[in-house]
Amino acid sequence: MKVAIIMGSDSDWSVMSPAYQLLKDFKVETEVLVASAHRTPDKVHEFAVTAKNRGVGVVIAAAGGAAHLPGVVAAFTDLPVIGVPVNSTSLGGIDGLLSIAQMPSGIPVATMAVNGAKNAALFAIAILALANAELANRLSEYRQTMKQEVETKDNKLKSILREEQS
Amino acid sequence: MKVAIIMGSDSDWSVMSPAYQLLKDFKVETEVLVASAHRTPDKVHEFAVTAKNRGVGVVIAAAGGAAHLPGVVAAFTDLPVIGVPVNSTSLGGIDGLLSIAQMPSGIPVATMAVNGAKNAALFAIAILALANAELANRLSEYRQTMKQEVETKDNKLKSILREEQS
Amino acid sequence: MKVAIIMGSDSDWSVMSPAYQLLKDFKVETEVLVASAHRTPDKVHEFAVTAKNRGVGVVIAAAGGAAHLPGVVAAFTDLPVIGVPVNSTSLGGIDGLLSIAQMPSGIPVATMAVNGAKNAALFAIAILALANAELANRLSEYRQTMKQEVETKDNKLKSILREEQS
Amino acid sequence: MKVAIIMGSDSDWSVMSPAYQLLKDFKVETEVLVASAHRTPDKVHEFAVTAKNRGVGVVIAAAGGAAHLPGVVAAFTDLPVIGVPVNSTSLGGIDGLLSIAQMPSGIPVATMAVNGAKNAALFAIAILALANAELANRLSEYRQTMKQEVETKDNKLKSILREEQS
Amino acid sequence: MKVAIIMGSDSDWSVMSPAYQLLKDFKVETEVLVASAHRTPDKVHEFAVTAKNRGVGVVIAAAGGAAHLPGVVAAFTDLPVIGVPVNSTSLGGIDGLLSIAQMPSGIPVATMAVNGAKNAALFAIAILALANAELANRLSEYRQTMKQEVETKDNKLKSILREEQS
Amino acid sequence: MKVAIIMGSDSDWSVMSPAYQLLKDFKVETEVLVASAHRTPDKVHEFAVTAKNRGVGVVIAAAGGAAHLPGVVAAFTDLPVIGVPVNSTSLGGIDGLLSIAQMPSGIPVATMAVNGAKNAALFAIAILALANAELANRLSEYRQTMKQEVETKDNKLKSILREEQS
Amino acid sequence: MKVAIIMGSDSDWSVMSPAYQLLKDFKVETEVLVASAHRTPDKVHEFAVTAKNRGVGVVIAAAGGAAHLPGVVAAFTDLPVIGVPVNSTSLGGIDGLLSIAQMPSGIPVATMAVNGAKNAALFAIAILALANAELANRLSEYRQTMKQEVETKDNKLKSILREEQS
Amino acid sequence: MKVAIIMGSDSDWSVMSPAYQLLKDFKVETEVLVASAHRTPDKVHEFAVTAKNRGVGVVIAAAGGAAHLPGVVAAFTDLPVIGVPVNSTSLGGIDGLLSIAQMPSGIPVATMAVNGAKNAALFAIAILALANAELANRLSEYRQTMKQEVETKDNKLKSILREEQS
Repeated sequence: MKVAIIMGSDSDWSVMSPAYQLLKDFKVETEVLVASAHRTPDKVHEFAVTAKNRGVGVVIAAAGGAAHLPGVVAAFTDLPVIGVPVNSTSLGGIDGLLSIAQMPSGIPVATMAVNGAKNAALFAIAILALANAELANRLSEYRQTMKQEVETKDNKLKSILREEQS
Repeated sequence: MKVAIIMGSDSDWSVMSPAYQLLKDFKVETEVLVASAHRTPDKVHEFAVTAKNRGVGVVIAAAGGAAHLPGVVAAFTDLPVIGVPVNSTSLGGIDGLLSIAQMPSGIPVATMAVNGAKNAALFAIAILALANAELANRLSEYRQTMKQEVETKDNKLKSILREEQS
Repeated sequence: MKVAIIMGSDSDWSVMSPAYQLLKDFKVETEVLVASAHRTPDKVHEFAVTAKNRGVGVVIAAAGGAAHLPGVVAAFTDLPVIGVPVNSTSLGGIDGLLSIAQMPSGIPVATMAVNGAKNAALFAIAILALANAELANRLSEYRQTMKQEVETKDNKLKSILREEQS
Repeated sequence: MKVAIIMGSDSDWSVMSPAYQLLKDFKVETEVLVASAHRTPDKVHEFAVTAKNRGVGVVIAAAGGAAHLPGVVAAFTDLPVIGVPVNSTSLGGIDGLLSIAQMPSGIPVATMAVNGAKNAALFAIAILALANAELANRLSEYRQTMKQEVETKDNKLKSILREEQS
Repeated sequence: MKVAIIMGSDSDWSVMSPAYQLLKDFKVETEVLVASAHRTPDKVHEFAVTAKNRGVGVVIAAAGGAAHLPGVVAAFTDLPVIGVPVNSTSLGGIDGLLSIAQMPSGIPVATMAVNGAKNAALFAIAILALANAELANRLSEYRQTMKQEVETKDNKLKSILREEQS
Repeated sequence: MKVAIIMGSDSDWSVMSPAYQLLKDFKVETEVLVASAHRTPDKVHEFAVTAKNRGVGVVIAAAGGAAHLPGVVAAFTDLPVIGVPVNSTSLGGIDGLLSIAQMPSGIPVATMAVNGAKNAALFAIAILALANAELANRLSEYRQTMKQEVETKDNKLKSILREEQS
Repeated sequence: MKVAIIMGSDSDWSVMSPAYQLLKDFKVETEVLVASAHRTPDKVHEFAVTAKNRGVGVVIAAAGGAAHLPGVVAAFTDLPVIGVPVNSTSLGGIDGLLSIAQMPSGIPVATMAVNGAKNAALFAIAILALANAELANRLSEYRQTMKQEVETKDNKLKSILREEQS
Repeated sequence: MKVAIIMGSDSDWSVMSPAYQLLKDFKVETEVLVASAHRTPDKVHEFAVTAKNRGVGVVIAAAGGAAHLPGVVAAFTDLPVIGVPVNSTSLGGIDGLLSIAQMPSGIPVATMAVNGAKNAALFAIAILALANAELANRLSEYRQTMKQEVETKDNKLKSILREEQS
């Protein structure tokens, strides 16, 4: 199953490319699409209703401001939709966060942090890993690596402080 | 030209009925529709793309929370769309306000105050009055009546205070 | 695969029971747990690290205020964790929403609307439906029913308005 | 019918000039005015009460902070008034947004996004297009062009990703 | 010199009457007016430009939502204007507070707390007391009384706690 | 009567110096003080209780974050205190605004906009002008000058646009 | 060492009494005081500068709105001061929270949740327990009891659900 | 007794190093740790449960966004935990502030201002000073120095203004 990344504007790509990169690192097949819920609604509709048949398992949808894209995609497909609020206005992303998180009962969108592209990819992977043991292993290893990175940073800071002291 | 009132849930009717009533008082033809951008997206799509041909001149769209309905309607029609954020969650309506007001460049929605149904009707009337002298007269009279009501309330308060004084 | 519903306080049950009920209606096996990230951290830890082995596929975690429970569960398991911010303080739920949504890179939590219990259940179902055709059918039917309910409400409102008119 | 653009300070021009430019592109006659609801209230009053007679059909009013200009203009004319909250203080524009959107019942202002000048112009055009078929055509074409631009950006991103892959 | 209390709606009276009462207790002459910056702008204009000649020294202006009244009054008079944001919408008064406090450079409004009518009266008194020794004395006594009230409450609570203890 | 400008930190001077300059332009005698409600509370106390005797008529107090200085000064003097919230933290000044505006009943502080130093000076002048005809004239002239500046800016923008057109 | 509970108004007692009760349950000596930073600043000053000599080890200070009391107390004593923002205005307590938490560098206040009286008491106990083994034991037991209460609630909910099932 | 400084990411060090430096200046022994509540929960758990035995008296925990670290540490130790919200997202630190301050009843965290590292150190010192007279003296001296610094800045500003005047 593929993960689709759809975003409302190509200016969102600088925020979303880490999600794409991470999915590639996990060897998850992706498709990437720029389509706006407002400017190209038919394209979004077409994308959403055909996603399942194209082999998409999870959709990651990113948008800022009055961020309707994730909700609109979720309205047209039963697939799990993950929403990424993009910080693209003067309000720091709270507009996107509320526009995605506060979905009405019946059509859920899994909201990530503002600009939380990487976590969207990791959440998509966690979903797919439920039925894919290899992916589950990679996710588990990824988490191990994260732990070691924190460990490394901790050691580095401690050694800097020790040196200062002496 | 008609004014269409579309709302995401029938529970929005208690907020929106004053808009309907005001339009009736102004003898503006209306159509009323319950349709959700998320639960019945096809119905919203159908409504929006055929609105102009049905004689709709202005659309009033009301929704709360992640309020996508006004923006979704605006994506499918060139008609002016007026959005009413409904106070329907625990956040006091700020979620609906931001979800409607912060539309991206290209597809405007004219946002009213939270629960501002009456003003949505008045704004629709102001639009239609541009090409309808009779409506323009009624709007002008309505404003005069409002002025007199404020005057009446002012006089009433002043007379209460005078009586207290004496 | 089961869905676990964990909440920080038994007072969250009035918010979360619709999630439980919906999962039962979908014939998804559930387990329910009251455990606090702060008052019973060991219980939460035990719950999270053993969840996968107990057959849990998705975790729904609900908490209000400084809502750490979803993030703490996500720290101890690779399973998808869905977070429900509960409106339990004087701030209307924005504290819970930010405490759950703004997770740091590496450990995602799928955030729902404030008090969005039903959507948490639906999102869990959407995840499980990826590998369960029967569940996918039920979800598809559920959505159809929702559509018809909106349709019914629309017709009811229209007939009330027609009667008023005549 | 003309569109008037009024702003509280000449420093708002950098935000508002795209509205002016867009209206010119649509061959809509405009008038531009710098006038402050607080510093030059008589000028605003004069502008508003004479607007209709000067052939103004729609007013676009922009202001930041305690943004009273749109509401004050709306108090003195029955014409549709579109308000643009300008991000001009340290609060990111939420002050302007609330000062414009939360108008009391009776005097509506059609609020755009913070700094949403372009949408103000497009909304004015949508209003005027109701009685101007040529303008309606241009608006329809504009929307088509927007769609193609999104399409172009989508293709460009996809081709970059394909090249990276190979 | 008189203190004028102007409010946008007679529904603000329940919030503002303590200001009126306090001024009466201080034997400060008042005038009370219901006039809306949006519905009766001419009345507000008339009020403001003639205030000084009527012997008004300080204006207290109260409004909620997009609370323009204090700023509009301040635009038409050099007298000190005190603004009281009224909690009259679903947003808890933050809209009124920002609409009054965030005035642009040049035309100040002295903003009180949301619903802070009493403090508006006290601030008006403090201004007038600068040139009125008798009023200054009453203000000084009022403050002494407040101190004693706090003292009384403190003693009462302490005696309740002592009784519980014994 | 003098105007005292007190600020919690010398870093507030860049925000407050326009108030000082404006008062000098109006030939109002000033005193300037750096004193912190938290770091030098005795100095603030000393300043406040002796202000009236030193000939101070109005106090302008500026602070950011948990901005207690204006309220603390107001607690120790009956003089009118004007508070200026300074934008000095990562929250954009909303912390200072609420910490100053939301004073409890009994001790008012006249709150200005975030960083609204100039308006604090103008409000102090408006207070002093009530008993000082010369100052009242200067204030009236200042307002006239402001009007002309807006007029000049309006003309300049219009002439730029005319040149572009031709 | 005693714990002092000081609050700005006797109306805060309904929020603060659980702190008092908890300290009594822990056999920690308390003193309770109603004193306002604004209405009775001298009383607060007197309280704060003499606290250490009276045997006070920790101060709990509660206030709402522009909540200056905790910061003012902290300005006059080196003792640890714990601040409790009280929800006493229409803004839900965010004003009190920011007014207490955002203290400037140099004078810390340990901020609790809005209305978080119980936690203030527990934090005071944790401080005193550092040098009081008996108190440390009681705190440890208290935490154990909390755990068991959560356990009991968990069992109760589970048994209700089991009964429903059967 | 030592003070432990724990932070969720090494990128928090630029915010937290002043706390470390201040503790060193006060000759308080410290330990510094980078450990994430989400990425390395076991390390945090290990740190917290062994802290008391290692001689830690107070814990300072810093984190941004959904800042769970302070609460998670507090869940595993009875020691006083001081939380520092770090401004590390696009929301200006309000997310971290609410995620730390709004702790549920039972497990307190002493919240500092956003980025308030220095105050966290000072609060830890105030706690330790209760049983350490030497530390109490140093804290008292530190406060004196602060006062003199404010005094110096006040004199400097005054002398600049005097020079300008002459």
